[in-house]
Amino acid sequence: MKTGRHFLFVPGPTNVPDRVLRAMDRPMEDHRSSAAPEMARSIFPDLLKVFGSANGQAFIFSGSGSAMWEASLVNALSPGNRVLAVRNGQFSTLFIDTAQRLGLKVDVIDVEWGDAVPAARVGEMLAADTAHGYKAVLVVHNETATGVTSDIAAVRRAIDAAIHPALFYVDGVSSVASLDFRFDDWKVDFAIAGSQKGFMMPPGIGFLCVSKKALGLLDQAKCPRAFFDLRDQIKHNAEGYFPYTPPIAHLFGLRAALDLLFEEGLANVAARHHRLGEGVRRAIAAWGLKLCALDPKIYSDTVSAVVVPDGLDAKKVIDIAFRRYNLSLGGGTGRLVGKVFRIGHVGDINELMVLGALSGVEMALNDAGIPVTLGSGVAAAQQWYRETATG
Amino acid sequence: MKTGRHFLFVPGPTNVPDRVLRAMDRPMEDHRSSAAPEMARSIFPDLLKVFGSANGQAFIFSGSGSAMWEASLVNALSPGNRVLAVRNGQFSTLFIDTAQRLGLKVDVIDVEWGDAVPAARVGEMLAADTAHGYKAVLVVHNETATGVTSDIAAVRRAIDAAIHPALFYVDGVSSVASLDFRFDDWKVDFAIAGSQKGFMMPPGIGFLCVSKKALGLLDQAKCPRAFFDLRDQIKHNAEGYFPYTPPIAHLFGLRAALDLLFEEGLANVAARHHRLGEGVRRAIAAWGLKLCALDPKIYSDTVSAVVVPDGLDAKKVIDIAFRRYNLSLGGGTGRLVGKVFRIGHVGDINELMVLGALSGVEMALNDAGIPVTLGSGVAAAQQWYRETATG
Amino acid sequence: MKTGRHFLFVPGPTNVPDRVLRAMDRPMEDHRSSAAPEMARSIFPDLLKVFGSANGQAFIFSGSGSAMWEASLVNALSPGNRVLAVRNGQFSTLFIDTAQRLGLKVDVIDVEWGDAVPAARVGEMLAADTAHGYKAVLVVHNETATGVTSDIAAVRRAIDAAIHPALFYVDGVSSVASLDFRFDDWKVDFAIAGSQKGFMMPPGIGFLCVSKKALGLLDQAKCPRAFFDLRDQIKHNAEGYFPYTPPIAHLFGLRAALDLLFEEGLANVAARHHRLGEGVRRAIAAWGLKLCALDPKIYSDTVSAVVVPDGLDAKKVIDIAFRRYNLSLGGGTGRLVGKVFRIGHVGDINELMVLGALSGVEMALNDAGIPVTLGSGVAAAQQWYRETATG
Amino acid sequence: MKTGRHFLFVPGPTNVPDRVLRAMDRPMEDHRSSAAPEMARSIFPDLLKVFGSANGQAFIFSGSGSAMWEASLVNALSPGNRVLAVRNGQFSTLFIDTAQRLGLKVDVIDVEWGDAVPAARVGEMLAADTAHGYKAVLVVHNETATGVTSDIAAVRRAIDAAIHPALFYVDGVSSVASLDFRFDDWKVDFAIAGSQKGFMMPPGIGFLCVSKKALGLLDQAKCPRAFFDLRDQIKHNAEGYFPYTPPIAHLFGLRAALDLLFEEGLANVAARHHRLGEGVRRAIAAWGLKLCALDPKIYSDTVSAVVVPDGLDAKKVIDIAFRRYNLSLGGGTGRLVGKVFRIGHVGDINELMVLGALSGVEMALNDAGIPVTLGSGVAAAQQWYRETATG
Repeated sequence: MKTGRHFLFVPGPTNVPDRVLRAMDRPMEDHRSSAAPEMARSIFPDLLKVFGSANGQAFIFSGSGSAMWEASLVNALSPGNRVLAVRNGQFSTLFIDTAQRLGLKVDVIDVEWGDAVPAARVGEMLAADTAHGYKAVLVVHNETATGVTSDIAAVRRAIDAAIHPALFYVDGVSSVASLDFRFDDWKVDFAIAGSQKGFMMPPGIGFLCVSKKALGLLDQAKCPRAFFDLRDQIKHNAEGYFPYTPPIAHLFGLRAALDLLFEEGLANVAARHHRLGEGVRRAIAAWGLKLCALDPKIYSDTVSAVVVPDGLDAKKVIDIAFRRYNLSLGGGTGRLVGKVFRIGHVGDINELMVLGALSGVEMALNDAGIPVTLGSGVAAAQQWYRETATG
Repeated sequence: MKTGRHFLFVPGPTNVPDRVLRAMDRPMEDHRSSAAPEMARSIFPDLLKVFGSANGQAFIFSGSGSAMWEASLVNALSPGNRVLAVRNGQFSTLFIDTAQRLGLKVDVIDVEWGDAVPAARVGEMLAADTAHGYKAVLVVHNETATGVTSDIAAVRRAIDAAIHPALFYVDGVSSVASLDFRFDDWKVDFAIAGSQKGFMMPPGIGFLCVSKKALGLLDQAKCPRAFFDLRDQIKHNAEGYFPYTPPIAHLFGLRAALDLLFEEGLANVAARHHRLGEGVRRAIAAWGLKLCALDPKIYSDTVSAVVVPDGLDAKKVIDIAFRRYNLSLGGGTGRLVGKVFRIGHVGDINELMVLGALSGVEMALNDAGIPVTLGSGVAAAQQWYRETATG
Repeated sequence: MKTGRHFLFVPGPTNVPDRVLRAMDRPMEDHRSSAAPEMARSIFPDLLKVFGSANGQAFIFSGSGSAMWEASLVNALSPGNRVLAVRNGQFSTLFIDTAQRLGLKVDVIDVEWGDAVPAARVGEMLAADTAHGYKAVLVVHNETATGVTSDIAAVRRAIDAAIHPALFYVDGVSSVASLDFRFDDWKVDFAIAGSQKGFMMPPGIGFLCVSKKALGLLDQAKCPRAFFDLRDQIKHNAEGYFPYTPPIAHLFGLRAALDLLFEEGLANVAARHHRLGEGVRRAIAAWGLKLCALDPKIYSDTVSAVVVPDGLDAKKVIDIAFRRYNLSLGGGTGRLVGKVFRIGHVGDINELMVLGALSGVEMALNDAGIPVTLGSGVAAAQQWYRETATG
Repeated sequence: MKTGRHFLFVPGPTNVPDRVLRAMDRPMEDHRSSAAPEMARSIFPDLLKVFGSANGQAFIFSGSGSAMWEASLVNALSPGNRVLAVRNGQFSTLFIDTAQRLGLKVDVIDVEWGDAVPAARVGEMLAADTAHGYKAVLVVHNETATGVTSDIAAVRRAIDAAIHPALFYVDGVSSVASLDFRFDDWKVDFAIAGSQKGFMMPPGIGFLCVSKKALGLLDQAKCPRAFFDLRDQIKHNAEGYFPYTPPIAHLFGLRAALDLLFEEGLANVAARHHRLGEGVRRAIAAWGLKLCALDPKIYSDTVSAVVVPDGLDAKKVIDIAFRRYNLSLGGGTGRLVGKVFRIGHVGDINELMVLGALSGVEMALNDAGIPVTLGSGVAAAQQWYRETATG
């Protein structure tokens, strides 16, 4: 029998604000009525802003972030197309896997898990590709598996320096709506997002932001597609409708989530994630533990992957935290299973929620045989939060 | 300013019971925790029962019913495969369109919109296909566009009589969880359903029920696929997990919806749909209007498509009902646009809800220049409901 | 197993709009925080407007309408005080009973149940009371038991004509927020209301509106009181607080309900109640049944009490409607038990909800052995609603 | 713009579990229908158990805890009756004030605020009252203002030793449903409770538990009363109904709250409150601060009142915590204003919620100029929670 509120500190799904949950708790409406377009017309422009775009077009699908990988690929590419991708964690691995399953040929730049997208290396590869064989470059903005944020602007500069026409695909699942994301500035062609992280919603819908350049390729793309075909969306969205029954409850929730994001202000949202994330990192440092991320410049403000000492099993920490202290932490994925636990610090959280979670991590670490001084991480985070408090 | 409750009588989304809405209005949970599998393990066996199956396997996807068309096709077929499909309304049309977009060759049996699947004709085509070129037969159990329910058992008998190995695809989007559906008895290979009709949930997730025979073909199927690949689902579902972040709120809702279905009893659910639908039909007859469905034997118990007299526009009836009387009716789709309006009578409804809706239809018809005697349809339905009342 | 939405047509509690229910579904807050006064400061002025007052003061109590009878009496009167009251139904009977229990001497003007407050008779009694022995006049604006609305302005004129200083008590439990109510114009001293009728909220809180004249008497009043003492409320409300822990969830709901009332407009709310109520009355006339209310001029727009033919039991109609047709009707109270059933048409309702309810009444009447032509009442109401439809 | 969940750590209202909030978020029902008694019949026996009674009778009122003081007094006493009361904090002060307002003569045993009910002194007073002039003894079980729990069994023993027939009134507003409460064992005659503390519900309803002895006095009691008259409740409750429109939403919530209490087990609930409260106390000790409660034997497990050093203002701590850290703490009341802040640790909470709150207190104390070592209180509580963790 668990009492009180669970501390959900996985990097997705994140805590859904009551306003969003209540907005979704509403009777259905006819999605084909004459009043229905109001909803879509209210949402799409705001959704576009969250991507940092004025020139692109935003799309909403029933589906997860993984579905959006597929949707982004099949709409602009053709089987056999070569693409260049960076693999620096589990989610970039799965993005590449998706591309391969769909018949694309993927040249992979492998870097250490914990490292960021090597913009220079991408630039070299593209510069060497004088025949413009690469139709696309695939990167993950924020590797949720390792807690690494890559410099997408730098990748863009590298592509530009190589004077290469490849489409620029950026997975922003754990960055859009939480970190600074600049679709237009970075000349992204496909940005991929999901509802369950910075958008603070239940999982179940995915978002794409697509550039005009990419939209010009829809008819040329030969990947077979039906449900994910953007042309159906474009046609129906233009009138405020959807090509199939839209996820109405999620649309209600999205409207509320966008309201929350704009009430706070996107820049403030990013600043808050930095501030809260920095508190988590100071706690980890106080514990004497290391992040999976290799360099402070690439530390993610939405998730921290903490390496447990050799010979110990991070799964034990996670399991104790969950069973004993009402705290959900993220596990290692792929090759990091057992080696790291992850603290998600994304979405609708605040200082005391983080401090409560850090308290729980301290207890679970000790219980799991990883001695850290009780209260030490909390104190380090408190000190930072006091220094940076407003109000 | 609209007051009171809207009367939602489109054939999907349907009215979501408060218990389902409240069940979805709940904080998120870590879908990878050690406790998470309880949810999946509770849901899948019950979901299978709703399909009338003990031997198949049920699957849940973020997506709509349309996504399930794609998921069903790509997992067992290969580009260039020939399939036989019946086209008797807008949804069978779109199912066929999906198959074609995915690279399948579809031989279409066209029948009048309003007619049912011609089992005999299917049998003849299959019998003639001695080379077994048809890899699948595609039919829609309940054509939501025309209000026609086909005899799937008869189609099965025709396939069997032809001694043909084609896979049997049945779209049950507007029949599963509301009409009698017998996956095992009818030897269906892929049954397709969505959350927003008989399941009484918000749109956003789709269901498949897949036969052992079909599951044996997954590795042979050459249609490119990633998000929809059943093999990922099978692998993760076996442990009570999902290959991607599952639609958690919808799973909470599904659990509640399944509880409601079983508390009422699936046979009672079907009987209630028949009883309520028959009241609607008696009202329509009292008005002197015709159904799109050509024969009483194929009248659908979940939706009635009502033909408006020549020269009149059904859209006007729908628009008046919506703006003036707080009533949502379904429109004609495809070639039936303007020719019919549809009354959905599926999901969480009862006598007085139907009678209120029929009252609204009577007023809207008169306002739209289609004179029917006020109260006449209501009285016919009342008489039937009184005769068949219990309690 | 009941499916679909219940038709709640009792004269309170009324249907609570989803916006109100969702507003109440919210975490608690500290009612003594520095931010707490915002809520009270937002609510009280709007609440006052609903009473039709600019000069009075509104109060909110945890309690029911019955509690407000007590609160209104004990704050301005002293044991042994004489008051004049009109008894024309069950609720005026209980109001009088409350006064008597609290030690007041009540002179009762009895009129037939079904009749209104006799303003002339009140005037005569007061004119005869040259010694101003009556400290108060107690009337019920809308007798919920009989469906009778009295002319409060006329009573006021009678009091004025008698040049009598008695306090004017008006029970507006089933009129405030649904019928035209003019606290200031009618020079009411205490108006009594509850949350569960026109305010469209769950029962549990009561409201008073009190005149400056009455507020001047608080210190003179000798009725013992503690919880209901307005002086505590005045002191704390002045700062935006309450003297005890306020009913926070209800305050959230009240804020939402006030928003709904003002979005529609109070005059429109009253007009809607008249229009919907008139439809009910036309149905009753079409059935050949009589109202308990004796004269069309006093028909209530929030509740209709329908007399069943002699020898028949209204409870049977109510019971059948409830068990068989998912419809709640009000019963007779006091001396009207078994003689009438009541249709509440107050709060968050619309045409189709009323028509659905009327359909159910028609079925229940017939089932109970009171033959009315099926559809006849519905048709009469439909005709009226069509004639008066907008949009 | 506040993000994340507020930390509500006042001693009422407490955090309402989602299950309770969702249970209350439900359409209204006719409280006079033939099905309505099921609710009351399900609730009353369970409510009685929460009071630790098998022989008493439980009552539910719309109202607050303060209303229950009045309800308990007026039903068994008469104006001019003498009662003996102990005053050891703000809530006992208000209880006494209520008694006085209602015309009772109260002899007060004053003890230091921070001390408990002096059972021996009560015994002496009663022993000296050989004429049995005291009709009742009034005590507060858990003084919410000072964080002091008195030994009610000892008071009972003192009454018994004095062989005195006075009725025994126990305010259990902040103890029932959270601390061990034994109505029958302690031979309590009136126990008073409210919804917004251990019952984990929104404020708005109050509860009484009344002994058979007290019920025998209802007709003799001469205090004027109407709304609070238990005889009306007894009459209607016997049939499963209420004498006035009951607080339906709260009844739905109460049913859910009772389910939660019994699922956890009342003894476990009390043990959890002790364990969580002890963590709070260890934190306070680690900070070097004192409790208002004078002796460890009387420390309350539901609320701790922390004394700030001389010359400092506790209101500043509270204000900083609220504005800057999203944390609500209780203030001092009555003579303790500015001298203490209170940490409520009652209701639906767990370790990490407490630790998050303690983190916030540490920051707010330092910001307010009361230096405590960051993390020190958290560590002390963590150590205790680890030692006593299960699972």
